[in-house]
Amino acid sequence: MVEHKILNLVTNEYNQWIRITDSVEEMLQNSSVKNGVIYVITKHTTTGITVNEALECLESDLQDLLNRLAPENHPYAHARMLRSYGSTAGNPSGHLKSHITGNHCCFPVIEGRIIRGEAQEIYFCEFDGPAVRQVSITLMGE
Amino acid sequence: MVEHKILNLVTNEYNQWIRITDSVEEMLQNSSVKNGVIYVITKHTTTGITVNEALECLESDLQDLLNRLAPENHPYAHARMLRSYGSTAGNPSGHLKSHITGNHCCFPVIEGRIIRGEAQEIYFCEFDGPAVRQVSITLMGE
Amino acid sequence: MVEHKILNLVTNEYNQWIRITDSVEEMLQNSSVKNGVIYVITKHTTTGITVNEALECLESDLQDLLNRLAPENHPYAHARMLRSYGSTAGNPSGHLKSHITGNHCCFPVIEGRIIRGEAQEIYFCEFDGPAVRQVSITLMGE
Repeated sequence: MVEHKILNLVTNEYNQWIRITDSVEEMLQNSSVKNGVIYVITKHTTTGITVNEALECLESDLQDLLNRLAPENHPYAHARMLRSYGSTAGNPSGHLKSHITGNHCCFPVIEGRIIRGEAQEIYFCEFDGPAVRQVSITLMGE
Repeated sequence: MVEHKILNLVTNEYNQWIRITDSVEEMLQNSSVKNGVIYVITKHTTTGITVNEALECLESDLQDLLNRLAPENHPYAHARMLRSYGSTAGNPSGHLKSHITGNHCCFPVIEGRIIRGEAQEIYFCEFDGPAVRQVSITLMGE
Repeated sequence: MVEHKILNLVTNEYNQWIRITDSVEEMLQNSSVKNGVIYVITKHTTTGITVNEALECLESDLQDLLNRLAPENHPYAHARMLRSYGSTAGNPSGHLKSHITGNHCCFPVIEGRIIRGEAQEIYFCEFDGPAVRQVSITLMGE
């Protein structure tokens, strides 16, 4: 069996960390799938999906890491005029942060419960907000 | 149902970004699987699989990021003589770029179509070419 | 069919690279699943799962990369006093190394064998040891 839903998000900051564990867990509540794997995949290229401990101080440390690795004021090629856009593209750092972070996570589902560690929270990471965003949540199993 | 194929690639540059979205999409054309998940996994350790927007300027920004994080001229341990190889191994930066990039991606398949965002293209990243390469494409579902 | 097991590990260093390919391969030996996908997912947020070549010199190069990107002596927010812990948290760099490394890998299983490249070994990466750790290994297919 395969179940799929889209999680709609509206972000309101340029860089933003949003916990979506509860929205992922909800998928199990009315599901016929008791054993399988659940996948969380962003539909965007300037966002990320990651799993880490839910502490504000850690969110800022992770964002600080990404800002150091992909700083805003680097002479990016992507910051140049793009004819196909009709304007200058200004989000190269968002794409780079997405590359480092990754765009999905997955967890086993056993006897109707997601198997994850106590500290593991699922994060949607916005790297070019504010924006309207979508995340695919897919549950496959039996 | 599980369907599997190997995508054969020949790269011709040391670092090279190759879009393989069409080769992945082809898997759906003659498939009996209408709902499930599709997996794209490289078989090598000096290559990567990633998902990002298909812009040449972005490819060069991503490669520039990886070159900054894993520069060629760093005093790597792996650059030393390796007895098992009988020669000096010269590709540590390729392994490191692979570590940062990741080696796979996955997407939901719903009603015969891969669910991905408009900007999401699947890339095979060569970090130690030219070389003959293989990518596993696996489609599992019902 | 879905089969699931927990791999228990005890690490004995602060940063440690442990090959777990054999433990993952064992899952196939007594399995009824002949075709599908196998998933390896850590249950912790200061550890990683990655796939790379099994060379000690490469392990140290990868660890050196992570130490450069997430150094111990950075002024992290997470290093401050945490009331909920009742003490100062000292492992921000472990969480950051986990973010860069990723927390899972997956491989196709075809005709009872894991499809992976010759050089591809599965690593559990400890970034805040010594510790008692668990890794989920899930095999789904038919």
